[in-house]
Amino acid sequence: MLDLSDQIAAEGILFTDQYQLTMAQLYFRVGLHEKPAQFDYYFRDYPNYEGHMAGYCVNAGLEWLLAWMLGNKFLDNDIEYLRGQKSLSGDRLFEDDFLNWLSTNGNFSNFNIRAVPEGRLVHPVEPTTVVEGPLAMAQILETPLLNHLNYQTLVATKASRIVDCSQRGLVLEFGLRRAHGKGANAGARAALIGGAAFTSNVGMSRALNLPPKGTHAHSMVQVFLALGGSELDAFRAYADVYPDDCLLLVDTIDTIESGIPNAIKVFEELKTKGHEPLGIRLDSGDLAYLSIQAARELNKAGFPDTSIVLSNNLDELVIWQIITQIQREAHRYDVDADQLISRLVYGVGTRLITSWGYPALGGVYKLVSINAEGKWIPALKLSETKVKIPLPGQKNIWRLYDKRGKSTADLVSLYDEDVDAMKEIPISHPFEPTKRRHIHRRDLSHIEPLLVDVMKNGKVIAELPDIDGLRTQREEDIKRLDPGVRRLLNPHIYHISITEGLRDLKESLIESIHPTV
Amino acid sequence: MLDLSDQIAAEGILFTDQYQLTMAQLYFRVGLHEKPAQFDYYFRDYPNYEGHMAGYCVNAGLEWLLAWMLGNKFLDNDIEYLRGQKSLSGDRLFEDDFLNWLSTNGNFSNFNIRAVPEGRLVHPVEPTTVVEGPLAMAQILETPLLNHLNYQTLVATKASRIVDCSQRGLVLEFGLRRAHGKGANAGARAALIGGAAFTSNVGMSRALNLPPKGTHAHSMVQVFLALGGSELDAFRAYADVYPDDCLLLVDTIDTIESGIPNAIKVFEELKTKGHEPLGIRLDSGDLAYLSIQAARELNKAGFPDTSIVLSNNLDELVIWQIITQIQREAHRYDVDADQLISRLVYGVGTRLITSWGYPALGGVYKLVSINAEGKWIPALKLSETKVKIPLPGQKNIWRLYDKRGKSTADLVSLYDEDVDAMKEIPISHPFEPTKRRHIHRRDLSHIEPLLVDVMKNGKVIAELPDIDGLRTQREEDIKRLDPGVRRLLNPHIYHISITEGLRDLKESLIESIHPTV
Repeated sequence: MLDLSDQIAAEGILFTDQYQLTMAQLYFRVGLHEKPAQFDYYFRDYPNYEGHMAGYCVNAGLEWLLAWMLGNKFLDNDIEYLRGQKSLSGDRLFEDDFLNWLSTNGNFSNFNIRAVPEGRLVHPVEPTTVVEGPLAMAQILETPLLNHLNYQTLVATKASRIVDCSQRGLVLEFGLRRAHGKGANAGARAALIGGAAFTSNVGMSRALNLPPKGTHAHSMVQVFLALGGSELDAFRAYADVYPDDCLLLVDTIDTIESGIPNAIKVFEELKTKGHEPLGIRLDSGDLAYLSIQAARELNKAGFPDTSIVLSNNLDELVIWQIITQIQREAHRYDVDADQLISRLVYGVGTRLITSWGYPALGGVYKLVSINAEGKWIPALKLSETKVKIPLPGQKNIWRLYDKRGKSTADLVSLYDEDVDAMKEIPISHPFEPTKRRHIHRRDLSHIEPLLVDVMKNGKVIAELPDIDGLRTQREEDIKRLDPGVRRLLNPHIYHISITEGLRDLKESLIESIHPTV
Repeated sequence: MLDLSDQIAAEGILFTDQYQLTMAQLYFRVGLHEKPAQFDYYFRDYPNYEGHMAGYCVNAGLEWLLAWMLGNKFLDNDIEYLRGQKSLSGDRLFEDDFLNWLSTNGNFSNFNIRAVPEGRLVHPVEPTTVVEGPLAMAQILETPLLNHLNYQTLVATKASRIVDCSQRGLVLEFGLRRAHGKGANAGARAALIGGAAFTSNVGMSRALNLPPKGTHAHSMVQVFLALGGSELDAFRAYADVYPDDCLLLVDTIDTIESGIPNAIKVFEELKTKGHEPLGIRLDSGDLAYLSIQAARELNKAGFPDTSIVLSNNLDELVIWQIITQIQREAHRYDVDADQLISRLVYGVGTRLITSWGYPALGGVYKLVSINAEGKWIPALKLSETKVKIPLPGQKNIWRLYDKRGKSTADLVSLYDEDVDAMKEIPISHPFEPTKRRHIHRRDLSHIEPLLVDVMKNGKVIAELPDIDGLRTQREEDIKRLDPGVRRLLNPHIYHISITEGLRDLKESLIESIHPTV
């Protein structure tokens, strides 16, 4: 049986694809393994859920990637394992000279990374993490880097959409049971970066220093029923143990006929004893209708401030629909729609932690430059699909803010171009070189460089904010975003352009590569 | 910065939802915490991908769940953390008496588990994992159990569909970079259980004692190009280092004009030196068309046995389409379709490891019985949705094989019913009690009980096969499955019935529960 230590060992330096190791040995064999190389991480498309597409992504995963790099290197038993790998001929696949090199140099102690900070909004095509390191180890890093950045960015983005449409309601992350194995913890963190208020995940709450949240399950009521008691007995027991945290799940038997009246009875008893009841949770049925009915009964009984927690396959569209239905129907039951909406809390599980509808961000990690004799030489990959040709060379990215202070476009430049100092900025479409125009600096309020030095010579040099700091970062970027880009459906397409300098470099490289047989 | 040891700590006993802990304390407070309780794991629906639905699932995740249970318990620092948790009133949320109990009893040393073995085909409604343990700890187990079983069953099922449609072609699991964080490793294991031949994931290959597989990436060719060399130079270097494992990626510049002719040139050089080239990989463009062209050129050059590896967002429908297109078009280019199909290998990444289209199995864990004074009392949960009412009480499940030896139905019975000994088996639809009929034992070739004792008093007592054993298990079940159920589109719906005894128990319990306010 594979025990936990075997599983943890498989999350170390060998948490990569086999071809990275065989390529690393090839680089070693031809003497290129220590050549400084630069790889860009970027994604090509926004998540496109069933019927709706994101207009932005929320950058996430960087801190955990850095932790993985600091915490892992080739250990003796990793080297021994590689020594045992066989070629199809039966000979050893990896030779001693390479393994000796890997044993000494198989770490990230001479890596530099520039990146967009976590929590910031990011867009396709632009390199959001830029890695510089010896070619062989930079190659081996590809897989773990993609694993860390793709998933957390995906979930932070989904969370941001859900939080954005939930108005004043809190969003709680409830997805541990439906997440992809241990990826649950990375997902919980990403959901918090994307704006979720809390998670039910106890281990991650401890790790991130947030209080974990939750209510109770149907099973608690079932236990009382099976042993001859009632729902009311179960609720009373809960109120007795948690008089100041009393949030009752009301749909085990019948929400309207049983759950809500029993909850109100218990709330009244709590009130008599001087406690404030917290609220109820609805987990099935027509959540908009039931929350109106619940609000009406709770209001009548003198509990207008209790929370109404909603759960059951929620996502941004379902929440939007619930709010819309409440706005239309609440008045028929003498319930104030705004007041009700302000007391809603959303427990979001499956559809957040799996990014339902688009469960993988297609981020890639592409070689863009290699250093030979002290000189950086840009590298290119051709493709019949224009959008699959990466932007070559070392680059910077810039965010352009219009006169309102809203970000309307990002610009990718050559590394040594000071876009902020230009009076007229000649730009081009990233994939259609004939689409060219100028931006006048005077039309912009501000130009902001986005890449920050985060690792120098294998040491983390950037300050890495805690979850609250990351959430603030996202909120600030959301506020500064052109509102059309925030829309849940059919968002404005944010502009990504490249400078004329970068365009010229790319076109000249495309020209220079021909099939040679 | 959260380092790796903090992350690993969050995968221990606190890898659960907060409400499990608060419910556990409530059970403690009312004296029910050590009452033996039984919970069933089952899923309600097959994965329903965009436009197509599975007709069966492949059971997976059990071994890792058992390892998690054996390897985790409440440690001192977990207890300390809980001691620090606060109620909203500012008082402590968890009291010392409960924490002392948890400190001593917070483990799974007195748990019994019956389960369907991994690799076997399973169906909705039937309990595939049945947990018996003290109520408080059985409640805390809910979340980690669901996390382990839901994801691996989901991916093993997707893999099985992909393998089933790939005919004789091998399927390689390539998804590490697009998986949900560390869930990648559970996903790779599940893909192998579902029939994938190998994975590119090095760490999991080591852990599972399989050789990892892979080719090379575009970056290797790019490096040579950037430094003034050619694609041919890159291929030659690769062939030089890996003469007996030479599998070349041919689409970095132009598949037809450059990649394939250069690969053939290198293969000829290898042949002269007495080596067998392995093949090529196609990663973009029209994979059916390009594989026909590649086969034609490789055949002409005298390499009819080399593999053609396909990758790029493959799933079962894409593979089916590729095979269909080859069957229709290959002859136009003088290529034998069957011969080509038999040399194809499929590198499947994103869409397998994320179960694209249906990224979460909705498996649930429901209280079905609780023991009071030595007697098991069945428990029920009502719901307005009939299919959400679990089957109460302790049960067994049976697979019924028709005269052809094909499995056509599963039957859920009361625990003490010996279905195999009945001449006439009275059955009913699980959710529509008036749909009743009899099965005659003489119409069946075989009745097989599916649940096996896997854990007794916290010790694993079942033999847990290795990956090859699990794959064989799946293959045997697939062979015995009614072929209509295997179909990729619109499969026959496999019959799940319950015995009349179970039907009567369920109906009488439903009758007995009324809203009492």
